[in-house]
Amino acid sequence: MALSLTARRAAAAVRPAASISAFSTAAEAMPFVDVHTHVYLPRYMQMLRERSNVPRVQKFNGEDRLIILPGEDDNSTTAIGRPIGSEYYDEQRRIAFMDTHGIDVSVLSLANPWLDFLSASEAIPLASHLNDDLNDSCVASNGRFYGFGVLPMQDVDAACAEVRRIAKASHLKGVIMSTHGRGNWLDDQALLPVYQTLAEEGLIAFIHPHFGVGNSDFGDEYGHTLFLALGFTFETTTAVSRLVCSGMLDKVPDMQFLLAHSGGTLPFLAGRLDSCVAHDETIASKLAAKPSEYLTRNFYYDSLVYAPPALEASMAFVGTDRLMFGTDCPFFPAPGVSREPMSADSPLTPLDTTPWMSTTKNQDLLTGHVTDTRGSATAAAIAGGNAARVLGLQMPSR
Amino acid sequence: MALSLTARRAAAAVRPAASISAFSTAAEAMPFVDVHTHVYLPRYMQMLRERSNVPRVQKFNGEDRLIILPGEDDNSTTAIGRPIGSEYYDEQRRIAFMDTHGIDVSVLSLANPWLDFLSASEAIPLASHLNDDLNDSCVASNGRFYGFGVLPMQDVDAACAEVRRIAKASHLKGVIMSTHGRGNWLDDQALLPVYQTLAEEGLIAFIHPHFGVGNSDFGDEYGHTLFLALGFTFETTTAVSRLVCSGMLDKVPDMQFLLAHSGGTLPFLAGRLDSCVAHDETIASKLAAKPSEYLTRNFYYDSLVYAPPALEASMAFVGTDRLMFGTDCPFFPAPGVSREPMSADSPLTPLDTTPWMSTTKNQDLLTGHVTDTRGSATAAAIAGGNAARVLGLQMPSR
Repeated sequence: MALSLTARRAAAAVRPAASISAFSTAAEAMPFVDVHTHVYLPRYMQMLRERSNVPRVQKFNGEDRLIILPGEDDNSTTAIGRPIGSEYYDEQRRIAFMDTHGIDVSVLSLANPWLDFLSASEAIPLASHLNDDLNDSCVASNGRFYGFGVLPMQDVDAACAEVRRIAKASHLKGVIMSTHGRGNWLDDQALLPVYQTLAEEGLIAFIHPHFGVGNSDFGDEYGHTLFLALGFTFETTTAVSRLVCSGMLDKVPDMQFLLAHSGGTLPFLAGRLDSCVAHDETIASKLAAKPSEYLTRNFYYDSLVYAPPALEASMAFVGTDRLMFGTDCPFFPAPGVSREPMSADSPLTPLDTTPWMSTTKNQDLLTGHVTDTRGSATAAAIAGGNAARVLGLQMPSR
Repeated sequence: MALSLTARRAAAAVRPAASISAFSTAAEAMPFVDVHTHVYLPRYMQMLRERSNVPRVQKFNGEDRLIILPGEDDNSTTAIGRPIGSEYYDEQRRIAFMDTHGIDVSVLSLANPWLDFLSASEAIPLASHLNDDLNDSCVASNGRFYGFGVLPMQDVDAACAEVRRIAKASHLKGVIMSTHGRGNWLDDQALLPVYQTLAEEGLIAFIHPHFGVGNSDFGDEYGHTLFLALGFTFETTTAVSRLVCSGMLDKVPDMQFLLAHSGGTLPFLAGRLDSCVAHDETIASKLAAKPSEYLTRNFYYDSLVYAPPALEASMAFVGTDRLMFGTDCPFFPAPGVSREPMSADSPLTPLDTTPWMSTTKNQDLLTGHVTDTRGSATAAAIAGGNAARVLGLQMPSR
């Protein structure tokens, strides 16, 4: 009777996904779509193995390690990089992960740092090859995979041409893009043609951090932890705030974005941003609306926040029809135990620990009123309904 | 019948506060305590007027302007500083503001940058003088003012001695402290004696940003807007995350902090911080608890978030008994119209726009269940009850 991932995992454990024809309860009938899940395609891994500078893949003690953070190979206080195994590129391992956690469909995207460190002449052909590889992988997955393509951001014309190619691919439903765009953040006016082309083609841009904001203030003694916990989320918040305050979205009002980590901190800070903009006539006078209006009209948010209070803020801010389940798989493996991301495999799972998604009933904090929201339309929308509707996905038969 | 500030303002408008003996409804009986409201005491203003470097007060076109942001006097893209009038130091104007907005008690604190830019020999005597001035002002206010003192952070022994003095002052209930502590953030081990002394005396430390985090990424074209909207909140988040991850709070478990701007972004990011720390054995192994436990046990949060979704996140995260109303008065005056802070005077007022505090009934987002929470114990606690209890304040008779 339960809607939770835990319950779906239990069901999946006794019935291999490929052989399941129908689930008998409302809970089990609710499809889960993971919109935030990353791959390093074999062609991309090969390129990283051949490189001698960061980003690169290097062997230590017989194990491949991925070094992607700026300056990470200079840092002697922590182990260099992180282990990178076949969970990042093996399709069968990914299907097994999805089955374990009751995830019906994954919308795969290349992980950071994408192609942004390459020259235009390297990035342009590689983008096309990788997008073809990704679409082929989705086609072969029996409906379990869709994808977000990658763009050669170094060349706006080439990026627009690649958007047109992606729009023709059967299983690619958008693009993944760094918060830095082509190196000058998302408010770079040179990106307008890319946004216009995406909007014309009805493709979403999944915005993901990589560089961090505030890095120099996090303290060497905290390793990469504050970089990942704070720097990533500050970066997304900064990029999107710049984009909104620039007025760019008045020029391309139909453009739609999906924000990693539920917008970084935007569901929490939107009110303060509105207030600060209202006090700055220079910015306010050039915008057709206040920031929070763009933030709810032009943006979708994943649910990847690891705790209920934040998920409640995202729901209250952007509305339950603009939130989409995500895991960040295969990143954030549990330390020393497994390589399962905590977002899918631990008590911190954002959905499992959120009362209205879990087997616990929902008690209103203020009134004490108890409601059983299991099986609600809201839970189903966030779990997969919104992604299926917005991205135009077919759910696989079970 | 309404609990909102708007209704209290209307009541105040027809009955001067000094002559009000009792309000007749539950709404009007709910005291409001503003824990985030700043002064530049006359002695401090005098010192700023005499300075030739930032921070300073300088006349432009016959108007005093306050220049406090680093590098602000070099920035030719915006007007230098901001107007600073008697709202920052005139006690009668402050009482009038409080009466207008139905605020019973203000807990006054010196605004940034406090004494942190002075030498120890300047800061030590000035701190004592300013704390005496502040306590005298509170004593003379007929119960309308309490205060948070200021410390000479340049000298830990002197700071501890000043904590002991503050504890003896009749109307000072804590201290205000920069996120940078004595220049090395709040996780600076040299601050342990200050925290221990505060904890022994039962005094709270109100943590407030000043420097910004991420400033170099905000783009010159956005003036100070992103610095204030994002940089301030990133700074508080960074400072407190460092403090928590350092293990300092295991050494001084009774220390209690109050966080400006509802903790910056911490109610939203706490789950992600927990997850990242759990993946970092170096940090996790030296902490007795996960970050979110410290963040709810050792910290109070003001309500200054300007929009309901964030306030709901703060309530859900820290609990309704650890949230306290604040306005940031007299900062954030509405542009060109008044010098009233938007937090008290506009549709963005965090409490007025939050359904459970306003005249609107509360409709559960998920279930559609409608509850009338006006006059709830929760509303009263956040409006003033928590501050009165935690800080030990007497409410003035009306």
